[in-house]
Amino acid sequence: MNLKKIKRAIISVSDKSNLKIILSSLKKFNVEIISSGKTYKKIKNMNYKCIEISKYTGFSEMLDGRVKTLHPKIHAGILSIRKNKKHKKELRNKNIGNIDLVIVDLYPFKENLEKNKKSKKLIEFIDIGGPTLIRAAAKNYNDVTVISNINDYFQLSNELKKRKGSTSLNFRKLMSAKAFGLTAYYDSVISNWLNKELNIKFPEKKTLHGKLIKKLRYGENPHQKSYLYDVEDKSGLKKIHGEDLSYNNYNDIYSALLVLDTLNKTDSVAIVKHANPCGVSTGKNQIESFKNAFRCDPLSAFGGVIAIDSMVTKKLALELNKIFFEVIISRGIKKDALKILEKKKKLKLIDSSKFEINNKYGYLFLNNSFLQQEIDNMETDKKFKIVTKIKPSISQINSLKLAMQICKHVKSNAIVLTNKNSSIGIGSGQPSRLDSCKIAADKAFRFVPEEIEGSVAASDAFFPFPDAVEELIKIGVSAIIQPGGSINDKKIIDVANKAGIAMIFTGARHFKH
Amino acid sequence: MNLKKIKRAIISVSDKSNLKIILSSLKKFNVEIISSGKTYKKIKNMNYKCIEISKYTGFSEMLDGRVKTLHPKIHAGILSIRKNKKHKKELRNKNIGNIDLVIVDLYPFKENLEKNKKSKKLIEFIDIGGPTLIRAAAKNYNDVTVISNINDYFQLSNELKKRKGSTSLNFRKLMSAKAFGLTAYYDSVISNWLNKELNIKFPEKKTLHGKLIKKLRYGENPHQKSYLYDVEDKSGLKKIHGEDLSYNNYNDIYSALLVLDTLNKTDSVAIVKHANPCGVSTGKNQIESFKNAFRCDPLSAFGGVIAIDSMVTKKLALELNKIFFEVIISRGIKKDALKILEKKKKLKLIDSSKFEINNKYGYLFLNNSFLQQEIDNMETDKKFKIVTKIKPSISQINSLKLAMQICKHVKSNAIVLTNKNSSIGIGSGQPSRLDSCKIAADKAFRFVPEEIEGSVAASDAFFPFPDAVEELIKIGVSAIIQPGGSINDKKIIDVANKAGIAMIFTGARHFKH
Repeated sequence: MNLKKIKRAIISVSDKSNLKIILSSLKKFNVEIISSGKTYKKIKNMNYKCIEISKYTGFSEMLDGRVKTLHPKIHAGILSIRKNKKHKKELRNKNIGNIDLVIVDLYPFKENLEKNKKSKKLIEFIDIGGPTLIRAAAKNYNDVTVISNINDYFQLSNELKKRKGSTSLNFRKLMSAKAFGLTAYYDSVISNWLNKELNIKFPEKKTLHGKLIKKLRYGENPHQKSYLYDVEDKSGLKKIHGEDLSYNNYNDIYSALLVLDTLNKTDSVAIVKHANPCGVSTGKNQIESFKNAFRCDPLSAFGGVIAIDSMVTKKLALELNKIFFEVIISRGIKKDALKILEKKKKLKLIDSSKFEINNKYGYLFLNNSFLQQEIDNMETDKKFKIVTKIKPSISQINSLKLAMQICKHVKSNAIVLTNKNSSIGIGSGQPSRLDSCKIAADKAFRFVPEEIEGSVAASDAFFPFPDAVEELIKIGVSAIIQPGGSINDKKIIDVANKAGIAMIFTGARHFKH
Repeated sequence: MNLKKIKRAIISVSDKSNLKIILSSLKKFNVEIISSGKTYKKIKNMNYKCIEISKYTGFSEMLDGRVKTLHPKIHAGILSIRKNKKHKKELRNKNIGNIDLVIVDLYPFKENLEKNKKSKKLIEFIDIGGPTLIRAAAKNYNDVTVISNINDYFQLSNELKKRKGSTSLNFRKLMSAKAFGLTAYYDSVISNWLNKELNIKFPEKKTLHGKLIKKLRYGENPHQKSYLYDVEDKSGLKKIHGEDLSYNNYNDIYSALLVLDTLNKTDSVAIVKHANPCGVSTGKNQIESFKNAFRCDPLSAFGGVIAIDSMVTKKLALELNKIFFEVIISRGIKKDALKILEKKKKLKLIDSSKFEINNKYGYLFLNNSFLQQEIDNMETDKKFKIVTKIKPSISQINSLKLAMQICKHVKSNAIVLTNKNSSIGIGSGQPSRLDSCKIAADKAFRFVPEEIEGSVAASDAFFPFPDAVEELIKIGVSAIIQPGGSINDKKIIDVANKAGIAMIFTGARHFKH
């Protein structure tokens, strides 16, 4: 147990709510309280006894509060090892008393950062004294209790009650872990902010941070525990109906929203299953987009996630109502549309009106390492080069662009067939490019054979051999878009020329795994 | 530019190498140096002038060095805003001088953690004074220069030379960013250690950290910049031949090693392409495993990554030499085997003898959020339940287990066909389970039709309808393993019984995306 009596505490908090809980508890056990600045005033106003820190140390607060607690009388009081005789003697010689409890939170740096404060102002919210107190107490958890979050007052109060004015080692260690969690998080926010300001993309020491938002029912599978963390307090997604989102829902939702972001066209629709698009359309209106996205692979769309880049109308709601989707994401929903859809208990409705993509990096964690990379946000039409005798028509070019935009979001090897403004066949996740062609073709023949004539195809990477191109020609595609760059490029262009189809090289590969 | 003259510096470093670089530079510009403990002694021994910190503050070092620099005279000297008249006056009144340069590194906590020091000893390596000095100086970068890494001595020395004893705002801000990078990293290591000690899996505040190891040529695609970071200094992988590994190599290498880890059988072989297994075998010896893994899909294996759970012999090297692999990973390689393979310039050879999986969580980053989950390391044979009239033979059970072990590592929807100890067809990454069945079947018919008789199948999730099971029966599989749990389970069992095949329910889904 290793119980330690609390005799003296230092309290200095930015968030002064709930102080009553802890003050009455400390009073009961006759704990002496040291405090400073506004916390001191607040405590006095609440009619509790309290010694001002400058009186305690004999050193007055300086530099507008930049130097208050950074004093050896405070830190020796926190850091001394109680059972160490030498430490005891040193404290006695210098007339320094032990401090057994540190209750400190930190200046709200992140909150002010998110208010878009200017650099100069923000710097004043970088707390120096606070983290030092917290870290000193957390290091010395064998003797000292640290409370770094006002939400833990209640727990401390209970512990003191249970232990008659003491705390157990277990409790102190737990609070120490929380404290270091906070200081690490706090400095990670500052570090990432400074790196962003200086445009340092890949710093020597990289930290990532998140605040626990909620427990998910489970992870990718039921035997895997999982939690959602927010890096910034703005997911931009609002659930307006249905049960809690699952791990796989989140994965699919973001996959779908990334597709819409790339398309960047109102009324677009993307349907996703197992993090792969299985139907995409940028029609003239939401109904057309929905119908065309859905017909691409109605079997896979079953139980999938659908994202709509506009507000759901009643007319669309009636259509959506006919099909089993797990999640519908849209930029809002009309009242009469909501009335129709909210009857479905198993459906989850998400409002993405405020969603925007603002992360710039992806992270792939691999055992003891991780890979950081820039996200793939290159526009596909920057370096188009027509390589065949036949030039694609404007309408073909638009379909080809769309096919490549979708391709970016399909797991490699990816082949996407489109006709006009809709996908008609998507081949994903195959180790062989030829197989992805066959899958895309198979889908098109099964579900939308009438759209094959005049269709076009995109490949996320170059064709290593002419075989897959021949396969696409056999299906009947009229144009192909691909990065180019294979040693067989010449052969492949010859095959295209021979078949009288158009081909565009983009120079940009879009692998996704 | 905002140049700031350096007049007074505080130096306190754990790593005392390279001090000469900086001391001679500071001497040239008449910088007064304050130092403590061993750094003080070292500087004096090197015949440079130096004031001991206790003399400077008038407060002697305490508690075995736990309290040295935590003194207002030091921190007011660092934190004062130089152009602020009130600050100036306060410093003058208290007879405190400005400190313009802070050179401090931190106690080597992580290094000692990795030496497996005990908790009690480790705590002494949690630095309190160091981070406070670094953070104070880094906060006040408008006036103060902070050097938190001995590798930056040279840069500082150059800056002082160029600016004639001053530093520019740019330089100071850059060093400030590095400093907060270090303190965030340092506390993240401590926080994760404490959480691990206390078995806190999902803390309220979560940080992840990495040390930059190297720049990769590019990320998943050539237009994406990418760097490798190490979370712990032990990847366990050693490159013994070939060019630098690419982003996609790393992804494939870990995918392959995860398969071998699950199989946990010497001499196993896994071939991976686009992060999906395309051939796996646990044969009697490495040659048999290699041949059987390769024949499963020789087309996809081309240019792939192959992992071998044993030491490569000359005999195997001769076989491997016939095929184009991008990466071969093995538990070492015999000298005569290396001689054969190292002739291939485009081949990369990795020794994984010291590799072991020790991460317990996966992280999926989604714009402003991330999902943390336990990795899927459940053993598949914990709750086997035979649900058909026909019971599988022991040999079938072994093949079924193998199929499910592979299935875990194939992107969903995943269907894996095996016969004896080898995969014969893998269907991956399809939004429809039926399609994955067809792909797996198609591979088997194309490459190993002679192995279809007596083969078995695994599905990573339950079958929603009997159609996919009927498809597998049509191919000729003799047994199926799957989680079960569909509302159509009864129908599906009926179909299996009618066809006279065996079926096992595991109760455990294995989605992977």
